[in-house]
Amino acid sequence: MPFKSRKSSQSSKSLRNIALTLEYNGADFFGFQRQPNHPSIQEALETALSKLLNRETKITAASGRTDTGVHAAGQIVNFKTHSPRSLEEIRKALNALLPRSVAVLRAVEMPADFHARYSAKGKTYEYKIWNHEVRSTFWQGRAWHVPFTLNTAKMKQGAKILEGRHDFRSFCTTDPAKKERDTVRDLRSLKVVKKGNLITITAEANGFLYRMVRNLAGALVELGAGKMEVSSLKKVLEARSRSSAGRTAPPEGLTLVSVTY
Amino acid sequence: MPFKSRKSSQSSKSLRNIALTLEYNGADFFGFQRQPNHPSIQEALETALSKLLNRETKITAASGRTDTGVHAAGQIVNFKTHSPRSLEEIRKALNALLPRSVAVLRAVEMPADFHARYSAKGKTYEYKIWNHEVRSTFWQGRAWHVPFTLNTAKMKQGAKILEGRHDFRSFCTTDPAKKERDTVRDLRSLKVVKKGNLITITAEANGFLYRMVRNLAGALVELGAGKMEVSSLKKVLEARSRSSAGRTAPPEGLTLVSVTY
Repeated sequence: MPFKSRKSSQSSKSLRNIALTLEYNGADFFGFQRQPNHPSIQEALETALSKLLNRETKITAASGRTDTGVHAAGQIVNFKTHSPRSLEEIRKALNALLPRSVAVLRAVEMPADFHARYSAKGKTYEYKIWNHEVRSTFWQGRAWHVPFTLNTAKMKQGAKILEGRHDFRSFCTTDPAKKERDTVRDLRSLKVVKKGNLITITAEANGFLYRMVRNLAGALVELGAGKMEVSSLKKVLEARSRSSAGRTAPPEGLTLVSVTY
Repeated sequence: MPFKSRKSSQSSKSLRNIALTLEYNGADFFGFQRQPNHPSIQEALETALSKLLNRETKITAASGRTDTGVHAAGQIVNFKTHSPRSLEEIRKALNALLPRSVAVLRAVEMPADFHARYSAKGKTYEYKIWNHEVRSTFWQGRAWHVPFTLNTAKMKQGAKILEGRHDFRSFCTTDPAKKERDTVRDLRSLKVVKKGNLITITAEANGFLYRMVRNLAGALVELGAGKMEVSSLKKVLEARSRSSAGRTAPPEGLTLVSVTY
């Protein structure tokens, strides 16, 4: 019988470990992680994978969860399958099955021990700010609208202070799901670039604490707005207390750009 | 009584003619023009104006109607009012009252005879194409997704042929609302620029026929896809018949960039 023979041919194949590079518009989802009664990227992806592979297929891991409203240009996930389909076929079929606000950019074969989260060596995020009195209908949902003029020179000075290996506890929102014990991270690069009315903060680190990029962006905006002095930023860092570090920037400005392994 | 005195003070003022520069995301509206039971930019704007000025306020004209799904970065409209409010006040209040996908960039005082449509001397449109096998979640609703590789050299050759003063009847969709008699236009500039996966067609003319930019973009894509030869484009232009000119590009790639007076 065709069904039986296909099944046995599948199980005779070795288990493959496939990594996908995902792009998504976070505005359409309640974050990456699956949750009841709310659309999530994980649910959209697992539904598409299950349809494609004719069996329930879970993703093993994502490089990290992104919050509601946060976008990705290079999120990495991996899943295991016995399917003999080519990577090209998998990528194309998933793009046909997924909602329009998620896309699979690449599908690659990885060694059995590759894990999208544990194997990650570093990540890059971008945080975008639309800095003009009038909102941008183009950047709406993609950038934080800050209507008063920000002093980017001060933001750049602040970024220089934050770069490097530090205990970033002051910039870590307490995640109810996981208590961060080790809050030391190596912020390899933190850059502020202004182009027209758009300010882009690019952060690269070996790993990020919960809401760390949004908390760093919030502090840099306070510097740029003159609500915090560059000189007091070092004290904020040393205080190791979230309460001293100013506001959290809203999710819509944040994009997970890439993950290195 | 305050109401009466205010009314008389208003009517003693001369009638002002105010022009607004508008930006909007066309995806959220059924075009510029007011129509029953569907949200339009005109309706959103007139509702906001009426609230602000405490009386029913109609806009006199827009530089042109944009179709459903078409965006604007510099649409011009004008309206008449006796209100003594400052331009700054009007702009700020309208931005507070308008839906988030419409914004007033500028408000300026114009001479009494200024008319956003009849006074226009020229317009610039941009048509964007996302040219990559995989769709872009970032450009979704903002660019036409063409999944096969386009030959931009051929598109540039075609644009050169179309530039200049011609009878553009072949690129004019018949508008049921108005029969175009004079279909000669001066297409001052038609440029094709590729940057990464994004192709931008910029068209500048003294005026455009109904759906002309989308019809030009459709023909250029047929050239780029190898479905039409550059040599036959001149014949298409000379045929003065819509049926010979290929498909109409979808609305989401089109943005009205600016109007000159």
